[in-house]
Amino acid sequence: MENGSNKIYDISMPITMDMPVYKGREEKRPIITVNSDFSTGTVYESSIQMNLHTGTHLDRTLHMMPEGNTIETVKLEELFTECRVLDLTQVVEKITEEDLSGKDIHPGDFVLLKTRNSLEPILEKDFIYLDRNGAEYLAKIKIKGVGIDSLGIERSQPGHETHLALMEAGIHILEGLRLEKVAEGRYQLIAMPLNIIGSEAAPVRAVLIKQ
Amino acid sequence: MENGSNKIYDISMPITMDMPVYKGREEKRPIITVNSDFSTGTVYESSIQMNLHTGTHLDRTLHMMPEGNTIETVKLEELFTECRVLDLTQVVEKITEEDLSGKDIHPGDFVLLKTRNSLEPILEKDFIYLDRNGAEYLAKIKIKGVGIDSLGIERSQPGHETHLALMEAGIHILEGLRLEKVAEGRYQLIAMPLNIIGSEAAPVRAVLIKQ
Repeated sequence: MENGSNKIYDISMPITMDMPVYKGREEKRPIITVNSDFSTGTVYESSIQMNLHTGTHLDRTLHMMPEGNTIETVKLEELFTECRVLDLTQVVEKITEEDLSGKDIHPGDFVLLKTRNSLEPILEKDFIYLDRNGAEYLAKIKIKGVGIDSLGIERSQPGHETHLALMEAGIHILEGLRLEKVAEGRYQLIAMPLNIIGSEAAPVRAVLIKQ
Repeated sequence: MENGSNKIYDISMPITMDMPVYKGREEKRPIITVNSDFSTGTVYESSIQMNLHTGTHLDRTLHMMPEGNTIETVKLEELFTECRVLDLTQVVEKITEEDLSGKDIHPGDFVLLKTRNSLEPILEKDFIYLDRNGAEYLAKIKIKGVGIDSLGIERSQPGHETHLALMEAGIHILEGLRLEKVAEGRYQLIAMPLNIIGSEAAPVRAVLIKQ
C-alpha cells in the first residue's frame, strides 16, 4: 500500500471471536454481537466485548503496579516514532541479554522484537518471551519502548519480573504484534491506543511505515 | 506535544462509562469492568463492552448497505493522509452545499468539518449535521473522506440519505471527532481503525499532525 512514497505495514492482530489469546483463556476471547441488521432494522450495528489485553495492545504500569499510570497520560508522540525491528527469529525459548547485546541498541530507541512467534501459527501458551535479564538490559540502555510478536512479553515469570523491569524504567510495552511481513530494519511506528480513561491497557491498530 | 518538529493533536473522544452517545441511547454507553485488581490478584486487568459507533469511529458501508464493505478491506494509506480542517462554526443547524461551496474543496481531499459541536458541551441529540445536499456536493467533487465533530454525520434524515450519498461515492466517514483544539488549515491525519473482522465500523484513536 502506498501513501506517496511510503509503504504501510499492518502489524496488528485481526480481531475475531476465535482469535488466539494469552494462555488460551476463553474469557479473553472477544464477543462480537450484531445488535441490528437489515432483517430487523434499517442499519447494521454491532458491539464488542473484549479484554483490554486481547490482540495488539499497549500496557500501562497500572497493569502491574498499584498506583501505576493509565492510558490517558500516554504522550502520543512517543508512539509516533522511529523504531527498529530486530530479527530474533533464531531464538528458541526466550530472549536474553546475550541475544540483544549484538543489536546495537541505543538510548531512546523503540525496538520491536521479531521472533519465531511471527513465523508460525500464533502460540497461546509456549510463546517466545523476553527474559528478565533481557528486560534489565533494555532498561539499563534506557530505551523508549519495546514491542513483541507474542501474546505477552513474559508468560510464567515469578512476580511479573519482565514487565516490572521495563515499567520501572518507563519503557512502553506493546504486545500482540504481527511482524511476519517486516524484515529487520528502521521504520516509522504508529501505535495510538484507544483513549479508555483510567484503564491499564488499550487496544491499538499498530502500523509501520517504511520510508 | 512534540515529535521532532511535529505537533500531535488528539482529535478523539475520551472513552468513559458516561460519555455522550448518539441520541443519548443508554445501550450505546461503554461498560468498563475491572476483572482483576490488586485486592484479588497480582495484576490489574479490565475489559470493555462497547457499541462500535460509540466515540470516535470509522463507518464502513455495511452500516447502511446490505452487501456493504467491512473494516478489514480499508486501505490504511487512505487514513494516513493529508487533510483539511474546515471552519464551519458559524453554521446553525446543518451543513449545506452553500456552506461548503466557498471552501475550495478538491477531488481526493479528506475534509474534517469543525462545527459548533466542538465549541459547546457535546450534544447527544440536536447536533449540527451534514445535510443531504452537502453530502451530494462532496460526492460530486469526489473527495476521499469526511469527518465531523458530532456523534453522527446525520441525525434524523429519511433513509439515511447523507450516509448513502457519501457511501455510494466511496467516501470514508469519520464520526465523533473532537476538533476544539485545531484551527482551519492543513494537517496530516492518522486514523487507524481497530481491525475487527467483518464489522461495519470500528473505533479509532484519531490524531492530527501539524507539520
